[in-house]
Amino acid sequence: MTKNTKVNAAILIIGNEILSGRTQDTNTSTIATWLNSIGVKVNEVRIIPDIEKTIIDTLNLLRSNYNYVFTTGGIGPTHDDITAESVSKAFGLKYEVHKEAFKILESYYKPGEFNDGRQKMIWMPEGANLILNPTSGAPGFNIENVFCLPGVPSILKSMLGGLTNSIVGGKPILSLTISLRTVESEIADSLTKVQNDNNDVEIGSYPFFQAGKLGVSIVIRSEYQSKIDNCNSEILQFVNKKKIEVVDR
Amino acid sequence: MTKNTKVNAAILIIGNEILSGRTQDTNTSTIATWLNSIGVKVNEVRIIPDIEKTIIDTLNLLRSNYNYVFTTGGIGPTHDDITAESVSKAFGLKYEVHKEAFKILESYYKPGEFNDGRQKMIWMPEGANLILNPTSGAPGFNIENVFCLPGVPSILKSMLGGLTNSIVGGKPILSLTISLRTVESEIADSLTKVQNDNNDVEIGSYPFFQAGKLGVSIVIRSEYQSKIDNCNSEILQFVNKKKIEVVDR
Repeated sequence: MTKNTKVNAAILIIGNEILSGRTQDTNTSTIATWLNSIGVKVNEVRIIPDIEKTIIDTLNLLRSNYNYVFTTGGIGPTHDDITAESVSKAFGLKYEVHKEAFKILESYYKPGEFNDGRQKMIWMPEGANLILNPTSGAPGFNIENVFCLPGVPSILKSMLGGLTNSIVGGKPILSLTISLRTVESEIADSLTKVQNDNNDVEIGSYPFFQAGKLGVSIVIRSEYQSKIDNCNSEILQFVNKKKIEVVDR
Repeated sequence: MTKNTKVNAAILIIGNEILSGRTQDTNTSTIATWLNSIGVKVNEVRIIPDIEKTIIDTLNLLRSNYNYVFTTGGIGPTHDDITAESVSKAFGLKYEVHKEAFKILESYYKPGEFNDGRQKMIWMPEGANLILNPTSGAPGFNIENVFCLPGVPSILKSMLGGLTNSIVGGKPILSLTISLRTVESEIADSLTKVQNDNNDVEIGSYPFFQAGKLGVSIVIRSEYQSKIDNCNSEILQFVNKKKIEVVDR
């Protein structure tokens, strides 16, 4: 895979607690930001419940559609943690004790504390590669293009760094944000012209409220700095002409 | 539809800014919490980019699979706001000026300020029902079982209340949270037994860190208070036996 290839990914958030609204997912943003930095674009996110058939079917679809799939949640010790077994079934692999994971957790816990619940966390698909967990011992795992991470945001964050070498990304996606003291409808026409002049650049427009004032952030995204610079100067032209204030955010 | 029917929904978050990680989605949690309170269970969430074909295909799938679909994002005045036109195409309906929306926005803006960008926001699928927007004028819309809301969280929140009468929910889903000063692996086996004894109740286990201490929140969810109470007392039995502290969160 050369550095010019577009590399994409899907994120699969597994957990009833996200679907019920009880827990605010933050892992999507964490994973997507990290993936962007290594040249992988997230094309789709799905949030699904802790139901085996749903996990299997969704994972099999996503892993055939995208270069990479990152799952979060369901790899802990309790009855509702069914990701590892579901992933095994999705790949048609045995669900078995991972010897290296056993060693890691055996030495992580005090003698006598490596109980049945904890031993659930060493069961994985046959042949899984471990994703090391510097925070709380229990590793995630990788099979082919699927990477299974925990749901707890602080633990997940601590594990991403160790994964960077396992992912072959394309060119990093660069971005520039221009924040303006205006409202979207004042700039919509001008911005459409800039987008039409620069079809291969992604230009997004996002209203914000800050300190009681309205504003709009324009986000320009491309693999090429020169294309971003070009859009930036076209935007600043109409911004100056309309006497719109550029603000820091 | 009687109040005993299970009513479900999907949420479709439309927007490159969520997939890039730049913007943290909070609308899923807002909509899901509100839907739970009126007896609608969210079975699936998808986050997709601002690409017309993707919006059309995903919407057509979700609206046939679930009782309700709620979309967020892409109904503003800029070039990247393509939800209304895409929804029109998904339903095979004309994309046209909505007369009532025109009147609302014409009177919302000062004379002369209802410009082309703003007039984009009155284009909707033929026959759409408006979802009124008490915050910033521009309405969302509803066609059949699909409800299209804006992406800005504060505006979206202000619009949900007005929708409650349009949704026929089932029994509200009740929940009880028990927070414990323990770790998941200490209670995993006992909790599995409670879940096995109560197959029709959803019991989730979620580790947390608070003020430097570890804990686990057990969430019991059911339409029936008596079933929740039953699980609660079974859980408190093993909690007392293991001398685990119950904490407030």
